[in-house]
Amino acid sequence: MRFLHTADWHIGKKLHGYDLLTEQRDAYRQIKAIALQERVDAVVIAGDLYDRALPSEAAVTALDDMLVDLNRRQQLPILAISGNHDSGVRLGYGRQWFASTAFYLKTTVAEGLQPVVMGDTQFFLLPYFEPFAVRQLFDDESIRTEAQAMERLVAAMKEKFDPDKKHVLVAHFFAAGSHHSDSETQVQVGGLNAVPVDLLRDFDYVALGHLHRKEALQHEPTIKYSGSPLKFSTSEAEDTKGVWIVDTDTTPVTVTFKPLTPLHDLVVLEDSFATLLDREHDFPVTADDFIAINLTDTAPIPNVMQRLKERFPKIIELHRVNPLEVALPDLPPERLQADPFALMTDFFSQTTKHALNDQQTRWAQQALQQAMKEDAQ
Amino acid sequence: MRFLHTADWHIGKKLHGYDLLTEQRDAYRQIKAIALQERVDAVVIAGDLYDRALPSEAAVTALDDMLVDLNRRQQLPILAISGNHDSGVRLGYGRQWFASTAFYLKTTVAEGLQPVVMGDTQFFLLPYFEPFAVRQLFDDESIRTEAQAMERLVAAMKEKFDPDKKHVLVAHFFAAGSHHSDSETQVQVGGLNAVPVDLLRDFDYVALGHLHRKEALQHEPTIKYSGSPLKFSTSEAEDTKGVWIVDTDTTPVTVTFKPLTPLHDLVVLEDSFATLLDREHDFPVTADDFIAINLTDTAPIPNVMQRLKERFPKIIELHRVNPLEVALPDLPPERLQADPFALMTDFFSQTTKHALNDQQTRWAQQALQQAMKEDAQ
Repeated sequence: MRFLHTADWHIGKKLHGYDLLTEQRDAYRQIKAIALQERVDAVVIAGDLYDRALPSEAAVTALDDMLVDLNRRQQLPILAISGNHDSGVRLGYGRQWFASTAFYLKTTVAEGLQPVVMGDTQFFLLPYFEPFAVRQLFDDESIRTEAQAMERLVAAMKEKFDPDKKHVLVAHFFAAGSHHSDSETQVQVGGLNAVPVDLLRDFDYVALGHLHRKEALQHEPTIKYSGSPLKFSTSEAEDTKGVWIVDTDTTPVTVTFKPLTPLHDLVVLEDSFATLLDREHDFPVTADDFIAINLTDTAPIPNVMQRLKERFPKIIELHRVNPLEVALPDLPPERLQADPFALMTDFFSQTTKHALNDQQTRWAQQALQQAMKEDAQ
Repeated sequence: MRFLHTADWHIGKKLHGYDLLTEQRDAYRQIKAIALQERVDAVVIAGDLYDRALPSEAAVTALDDMLVDLNRRQQLPILAISGNHDSGVRLGYGRQWFASTAFYLKTTVAEGLQPVVMGDTQFFLLPYFEPFAVRQLFDDESIRTEAQAMERLVAAMKEKFDPDKKHVLVAHFFAAGSHHSDSETQVQVGGLNAVPVDLLRDFDYVALGHLHRKEALQHEPTIKYSGSPLKFSTSEAEDTKGVWIVDTDTTPVTVTFKPLTPLHDLVVLEDSFATLLDREHDFPVTADDFIAINLTDTAPIPNVMQRLKERFPKIIELHRVNPLEVALPDLPPERLQADPFALMTDFFSQTTKHALNDQQTRWAQQALQQAMKEDAQ
């Protein structure tokens, strides 16, 4: 059989306040187009369909529209699991009906041990899990880590292996050795919370979700993260997003990458303020792209964000890559040595055209004393 | 055909802090038993399946279990709408799959205009709506009230009437003339927000939800509130809860009430503190019943709630039905005319074994002066 592997849609996610539903709907349309063009037999979604356990109504409607379109209108079977960003319970409401039209959605570990057979393949749909759920399931207090839990789960799955079938695991966790990017907020790197890749070698293919970069396991030919369909952080700016097409007819399975074209890209620009604002200078971005700016200037720039947004409306990050050089104002040398209170009263009267009144003088003196006391500590 | 009419399950509702899921599961079991015993062709649920737009995961699981059991296990068709307590969007997620096994759930007004045909009957499943939704649907600015909206909706439904079928409306609103009880928190009584019963006479039966007492429209033979399966407020304490069984084979339709037996009842006890605590006195309640107490005493009773809860663990309300008579302490007459400040200092020193210090004396004097000033105003 032939299936499409995607994950980490994170429907409802915002990028620094910018709603991504338009971009997510576009990515969905591309994924569907690839699925139809490649004539796949099923679409695998390896978790994190929503961005939050309590998705907004707009997010619920958007995902519902996509799944209805894919499964009911296009008549494509779906094999999906809940991820750590989903509430398994909320996402899974209705899954008993979904299965009646070959939309298999698993949200508990126990469900993941029962393979779904499609064509020549057994699919084990293992949702995101906490080790304690596996400890409870097997009533085994010795299960403490993700690795121990996974070892136990794989053993249970292998008991169900039909030797005449291919075996595909769909799962959502951090596989050991994989690099991660800034947008997987809940990842705890390495150690106890990682699943060693070696535990997964008995499967013909492992369709993973959780990490947002397909490069995370690039040296593994048949254990793959699909990555997210959109760039969710600047660390993914240079990535090419896409989906895997997996053919189980061959041994080993054949895996092909199909790229997605971002409707609105996420671009990092590194340049000086003057160049960035120079309308003659041509940056490879559109007004709808999400821009992270690395400013090379070293001088303070008043209203820097506001002025940059006139040129790049959707700025999601602004960093200085060089240390700020704050020049002292051009004052005669005797002023620099003046009493701080005198400087303060001068500044106040110059700025407001009024002298400090008695009450203000008391406040100013107290504040200065406090500041000096703290400075001395 | 024959169907069961229920509504206002409010899964996830708490009664003054007490979880009702156990009672709600029991009520569900009774409703299912009636449906099977009466061999109904469908179960109608007229809105407010959940108690909140954002139900807890426990509530989602409980409702999912009930609907899976009824529709998938018992193979009973379900005809349902969202109520004002439900989020139509959240509840309706998955409804495109539900319909594939005859679970019809409508959450938008437009969907409500397309009848579901079952046996000899057209069902119009009209969810709770705001007039503005109907204004938008018909692009008619003149639609301002529930009554105007409903008039327009009924006209549109009648265009779809098949003269060879019976016509049943399932809806969730406040029908004019109906009395309401304390547990329908969002009801605005009468006036602009009510739908006149006369608008509904073209239907063979109207299965309503929203009001929690089946007596709300007791003089209407074929326009009925089912009421809630449980008592949710003391104003419902004397009610008999249940469901309607409706036969469409006759003209007019035949309507029969089937009572539910509360697992744990809601009981109002009106008596004196002494009688209530008297273990010899037999009150018709169990330790699991929800008790509202109307205390007849007129004297203050220290720790009254705590002491009553030793006898009745689940007290949900405590009222005094007679004015409290606060007796003045037994003081010699000259003390009653004493200076308030002298009384205060005496009380303080007697209670604490210390005299007021200077600061305390100032505070006490200030407080007394303030109190007298306010008293004089």
